[in-house]
Amino acid sequence: MLSKNTIKYIQSLRLKKFRQKYRNFVAEGEKIALEILQGQELIIEGLYALPEWLEKNSSFLTIDPSKIHAISTKDLDRISSLKTPNKVVAVCNIPTYSLEIPLLNNSLTLYLDGIQDPGNMGSILRIADWFGLPYVFCSSGCVDIYNPKVIQSSMGAFLRVQTLEKDIEGLKTQCPDLTIFAAVLDGLNVFSTTLPSKGLLVIGNEGKGISPQAQAATTVRLTIPKGPKGGAESLNAAVATGILCSAFLNKG
Amino acid sequence: MLSKNTIKYIQSLRLKKFRQKYRNFVAEGEKIALEILQGQELIIEGLYALPEWLEKNSSFLTIDPSKIHAISTKDLDRISSLKTPNKVVAVCNIPTYSLEIPLLNNSLTLYLDGIQDPGNMGSILRIADWFGLPYVFCSSGCVDIYNPKVIQSSMGAFLRVQTLEKDIEGLKTQCPDLTIFAAVLDGLNVFSTTLPSKGLLVIGNEGKGISPQAQAATTVRLTIPKGPKGGAESLNAAVATGILCSAFLNKG
Repeated sequence: MLSKNTIKYIQSLRLKKFRQKYRNFVAEGEKIALEILQGQELIIEGLYALPEWLEKNSSFLTIDPSKIHAISTKDLDRISSLKTPNKVVAVCNIPTYSLEIPLLNNSLTLYLDGIQDPGNMGSILRIADWFGLPYVFCSSGCVDIYNPKVIQSSMGAFLRVQTLEKDIEGLKTQCPDLTIFAAVLDGLNVFSTTLPSKGLLVIGNEGKGISPQAQAATTVRLTIPKGPKGGAESLNAAVATGILCSAFLNKG
Repeated sequence: MLSKNTIKYIQSLRLKKFRQKYRNFVAEGEKIALEILQGQELIIEGLYALPEWLEKNSSFLTIDPSKIHAISTKDLDRISSLKTPNKVVAVCNIPTYSLEIPLLNNSLTLYLDGIQDPGNMGSILRIADWFGLPYVFCSSGCVDIYNPKVIQSSMGAFLRVQTLEKDIEGLKTQCPDLTIFAAVLDGLNVFSTTLPSKGLLVIGNEGKGISPQAQAATTVRLTIPKGPKGGAESLNAAVATGILCSAFLNKG
């Protein structure tokens, strides 16, 4: 049985304040747990799982045995933030990534300027992972990458995409050669503009769009053209990110 | 004050069973209510709003006054399905759309084959609206278009995109000339395939992909190619839909 303190500690990691204090976060579910165990990108602080799961997956349990805890369904319910808890919960260290300027200068990367919806954040990490973008930068106004809902909806992409919180002016000072593109509603048609396969693409907040700081840093403003009979006011932020990334990377 | 029966009736419309029984659904919030009042695509059964909202927007209230109800914040809380109810709730008739075969044959349209997530469904309707697709077909396994979460996340797109529930074999029999494309993980590279600007594009379920029925009906299997360093298993269904639609409609 888990101690009250352990349960309280794991539950506290649902809040950003405690994730930042302890530099730990929670990843749940069989698929993600196995990816973490096999991938070795992350340091596991504790693995909490039903006994039958531990038995079935014993060959993957190569971490320090003192970190592995067989728990009851009742305890799993307590520490899980899912409606339907799924056999295993991993408490992991939040990784710290460092920025390689040459890699940044030679790649397409994303700057998320206040993305608020955890589902959008997860979907955007999946896009970055799918297209192999090395970095996703987040403004301080973004939903936390290690929010349980982001972790769930990113489907493991958070393991492979390096995410860094940066203000855009600082990033521009650090990398003066970077061309900064921004997704806006009144920019150049992205499909008829000649695009490089590198640069920083800014995606704005779901409601408010691009911040004044990011607007000021932007070199090229891009728009996904509406169809002749199109009526929507905007596309979902993750959908727009996907379309723009594919316009940069796939020129037919 | 609203009667208990009215409150119960509006609350019942959160469930598909009652929406189908009464052929009504609920749309909430100022923006959508004003779009519905101005657009006249939908028949409003009842408009329930705070008195100050009705006063401020009196010039738009051109419907039968017996259908307009000033309500208290307390009653708004009761009938709303939002965490933060937003001033106005409209109960509307579910529209019935009829299929124009020549329009279908000459357009890009979508077939949603078991899309389950309301946020994805809403985002896909926004894509269809943005690009001006005339129809979105849904299999019987999809989340209901008139689910409150779909209505919210579609941001009014449900007013402009005609949605029809159809089984794919029936649709193929009805329109034998239709080329059916499907989004899969092992098809032709969508960016190096010559695509028409018309056809039916099948998007599969978030977890299970395309159903055997839709597989059998498919003419061309398409894939969004992963980047050389890409790692994700898949893209979010709405993101994939956006990328594919833009590949069909924008050839640079």
